[in-house]
Amino acid sequence: MAAPSVAVDNLNPKVVILRLLMPVLNCEYAVRGEIVIHAQRLQQQLQTQPGSLPFDEILYCNIGNPQSLGQKPVTFFREVIALCDHPCLLEKEETKSLFSADAISRATTILASIPGRATGAYSHSQGIKGLRDAIAAGIASRDGYPANADDIFLTDGASPGVHMMMQLLIRNEKDGILCPIPQYPLYSASIALHGGALVPYYLNESTGWGLEISDLKKQLEDSRLKGIDVRALVVINPGNPTGQVLAEENQRDIVKFCKNEGLVLLADEVYQENIYVDNKKFNSFKKIARSMGYNEDDLPLVSFQSVSKGYYGECGKRGGYMEITGFSAPVREQIYKVASVNLCSNITGQILASLVMNPPKAGDASYASYKAEKDGILQSLARRAKALENAFNSLEGITCNKTEGAMYLFPQLSLPQKAIDAAKAANKAPDAFYALRLLEATGIVVVPGSGFGQVPGTWHIRCTILPQEEKIPAIISRFKAFHEGFMAAYRD
Amino acid sequence: MAAPSVAVDNLNPKVVILRLLMPVLNCEYAVRGEIVIHAQRLQQQLQTQPGSLPFDEILYCNIGNPQSLGQKPVTFFREVIALCDHPCLLEKEETKSLFSADAISRATTILASIPGRATGAYSHSQGIKGLRDAIAAGIASRDGYPANADDIFLTDGASPGVHMMMQLLIRNEKDGILCPIPQYPLYSASIALHGGALVPYYLNESTGWGLEISDLKKQLEDSRLKGIDVRALVVINPGNPTGQVLAEENQRDIVKFCKNEGLVLLADEVYQENIYVDNKKFNSFKKIARSMGYNEDDLPLVSFQSVSKGYYGECGKRGGYMEITGFSAPVREQIYKVASVNLCSNITGQILASLVMNPPKAGDASYASYKAEKDGILQSLARRAKALENAFNSLEGITCNKTEGAMYLFPQLSLPQKAIDAAKAANKAPDAFYALRLLEATGIVVVPGSGFGQVPGTWHIRCTILPQEEKIPAIISRFKAFHEGFMAAYRD
Repeated sequence: MAAPSVAVDNLNPKVVILRLLMPVLNCEYAVRGEIVIHAQRLQQQLQTQPGSLPFDEILYCNIGNPQSLGQKPVTFFREVIALCDHPCLLEKEETKSLFSADAISRATTILASIPGRATGAYSHSQGIKGLRDAIAAGIASRDGYPANADDIFLTDGASPGVHMMMQLLIRNEKDGILCPIPQYPLYSASIALHGGALVPYYLNESTGWGLEISDLKKQLEDSRLKGIDVRALVVINPGNPTGQVLAEENQRDIVKFCKNEGLVLLADEVYQENIYVDNKKFNSFKKIARSMGYNEDDLPLVSFQSVSKGYYGECGKRGGYMEITGFSAPVREQIYKVASVNLCSNITGQILASLVMNPPKAGDASYASYKAEKDGILQSLARRAKALENAFNSLEGITCNKTEGAMYLFPQLSLPQKAIDAAKAANKAPDAFYALRLLEATGIVVVPGSGFGQVPGTWHIRCTILPQEEKIPAIISRFKAFHEGFMAAYRD
Repeated sequence: MAAPSVAVDNLNPKVVILRLLMPVLNCEYAVRGEIVIHAQRLQQQLQTQPGSLPFDEILYCNIGNPQSLGQKPVTFFREVIALCDHPCLLEKEETKSLFSADAISRATTILASIPGRATGAYSHSQGIKGLRDAIAAGIASRDGYPANADDIFLTDGASPGVHMMMQLLIRNEKDGILCPIPQYPLYSASIALHGGALVPYYLNESTGWGLEISDLKKQLEDSRLKGIDVRALVVINPGNPTGQVLAEENQRDIVKFCKNEGLVLLADEVYQENIYVDNKKFNSFKKIARSMGYNEDDLPLVSFQSVSKGYYGECGKRGGYMEITGFSAPVREQIYKVASVNLCSNITGQILASLVMNPPKAGDASYASYKAEKDGILQSLARRAKALENAFNSLEGITCNKTEGAMYLFPQLSLPQKAIDAAKAANKAPDAFYALRLLEATGIVVVPGSGFGQVPGTWHIRCTILPQEEKIPAIISRFKAFHEGFMAAYRD
């Protein structure tokens, strides 16, 4: 079939080795990773031969994609988007009975901020100025410190922002980026595609996935001895796949570390609205830095935000932004240049980003229903997280840290040696072996921890907290039954 | 301001040199290139000090962004999008009076093809299967040859597809891509960012920007002698910035050339709906290849399409696709891998791409109004192109090929030596000097030909045909007056 001119062995090796280096891009490849491909095959089998499997549906717990599992979009956001997409509606009388009054006035305001009201035009490459003003106001109100529209780059989800920064910072394989392990594989993939070195630092599972400055320092020093020029530190807070929320003091130490070591702080803050415990709150790294008296001169800092997470979960809209502070004007020009090569991010995503940073306020017509939708989603997610955490911890050989935030549990599996041997015989990592058996027995789809990185010799799975709440008890009982059977079968 | 750790001299040089290599990314940087920045400054001056300039408005002819200049979106497309964004509308009685019946039924069909009707969920990384089926059907009906949903990769506009292919094909600076000169700077920028070599071939202005196979062969052989491994040929048809529509016979020669030389044919076909002359029609390269009896085994071929162009001009929606044929399964897997790192393109753009490839048909409720909107836009564009072409050709020292397609005129300026000397004294390329003087005298914004590449010693400007039709006479008379004055001032 192939024309001989193009074959895998003459493609860009940075692309080709991506999977070999990181056998576990199953998370990024959730739609096609080995386990998910198998799940889709089983789903087809359930359709064509009902009753042929020991379960009657596939339960996807593998990807942070809430609306694919039935989460409803927030009404206010969708009303505004529909009105902006089809502004003729604003001139029709019927519209008043179909849309809430504040959605109508918000859409009117947004359209007025777009040159020519043209939601179908390319915008400024950083995004529409009026929307960036709104986002900056939302950040300022969140943090209590000023934010500037000129620092905002609107992007199609958070990923393009991460790629832009990697493209800018990485010159060659001697440029390193400090990344947490476990990590969201976007980072390892982006570093690999741009030809840099991933410098790992391990989160401490025994302290609830704490980030230890001493380990950061050690990894940094080791890398420098190897001739790696470490350019930046990635922190994911709340954590993915680990679900921890960093303590304020820890954040201060991280900021100080970056300042002292001359590192760019790349703060993945896309789960900033997903907090499930009373004793923790989200603090942006910018707020922490400013509260320490650090300003633009002290620290180059990038904060990534996305409309895909939070209580909104609008993954398909591909909206997001990065806020960049502490970069010189010439460097900012380079960032702008990279942004402008793709012209601009999609305007619907831009509008949505402005909305999630400025939702309805008390007194607005939609406020009560908006708040009920938001609280309903977040409280349900908290209950689901707690129920799954308790279930995992009740099982032999599983320990699971609390999900303080984000959308995932990352339980550790202490597998019997016989299971590890069986995995080896099947040419699979033990956690992948476990996840496949789990799928085949129960229809539950999780991602093996090897997809995110883990301390060698430990095994984990990542399980989202996103299946509909009424399905959680069934997931738990199926999981329990499988796990007990698995442990019994492979007991040493 | 700058943290010392990040400075231009320690950024990725592929990013930093981008502008130096190609001083003319003003097109990509239309929102901020020297001339456009100056135009924005003048626009502000007009607001704060009306009457202080010899014109009363800025006339943007610099970028293919129709809706920014007042082109209205096609109603049917926006109706469907609004309904898909806010599907609750489909349950309301009032909706029937606000939306056309076929928009309602199309939105219903589209939602039914999306798993869980979730327009807020990440899709398959190639795009939603049902939408790809619709696009494949649209391609098949356009070409008269089958198309396959598995070959379609939906993208945020056409640019990400181009970047993906460059990322895949370019291993190092010895990998070359044949590109037309003049060219749309996306190609030069993408090749530079991925570290490859741009192998130029010149379009022949004297034959209406014809593509000469003999020049292609010569450039290919010269590059090979220099050790360049030429991987692909970029063809832009209809041409940007040159506006020509390739003749069928020419296309057949290009296909044969690619097959014989083992090149990937990268066909930029985003202007496929923008044809303004009766004696030419758009033929996709896939149709041409299939009509020659070439199949998947003969030729790796990528066709890029976008919702930003055509009569729809939906630049802000960032929709598009690439259709890839003739690649082996392992190579396709690598393409998929690159696509999946960013999860998926935005769903609104995906829906729009399915709509532009399957617009209303005779008999549909919207058909008459849709056709009136479409024909109105295309006929007006054709009149604008003709009027501007005639005006340019009526002027001393300007020759302008016919705009057969796309959205641009690319007239050649024969400038007096004194003007060239004055440009040199001002440290500017003569065409940039001319464009700046034009702006300052008339408010008309064009992009100098040096932004696209041109035969050394020739000078051009790119002027879009997009200003509203009622403004064209004023543009022409202002342009004429300026040009006559300029020529008089610098006459040798």
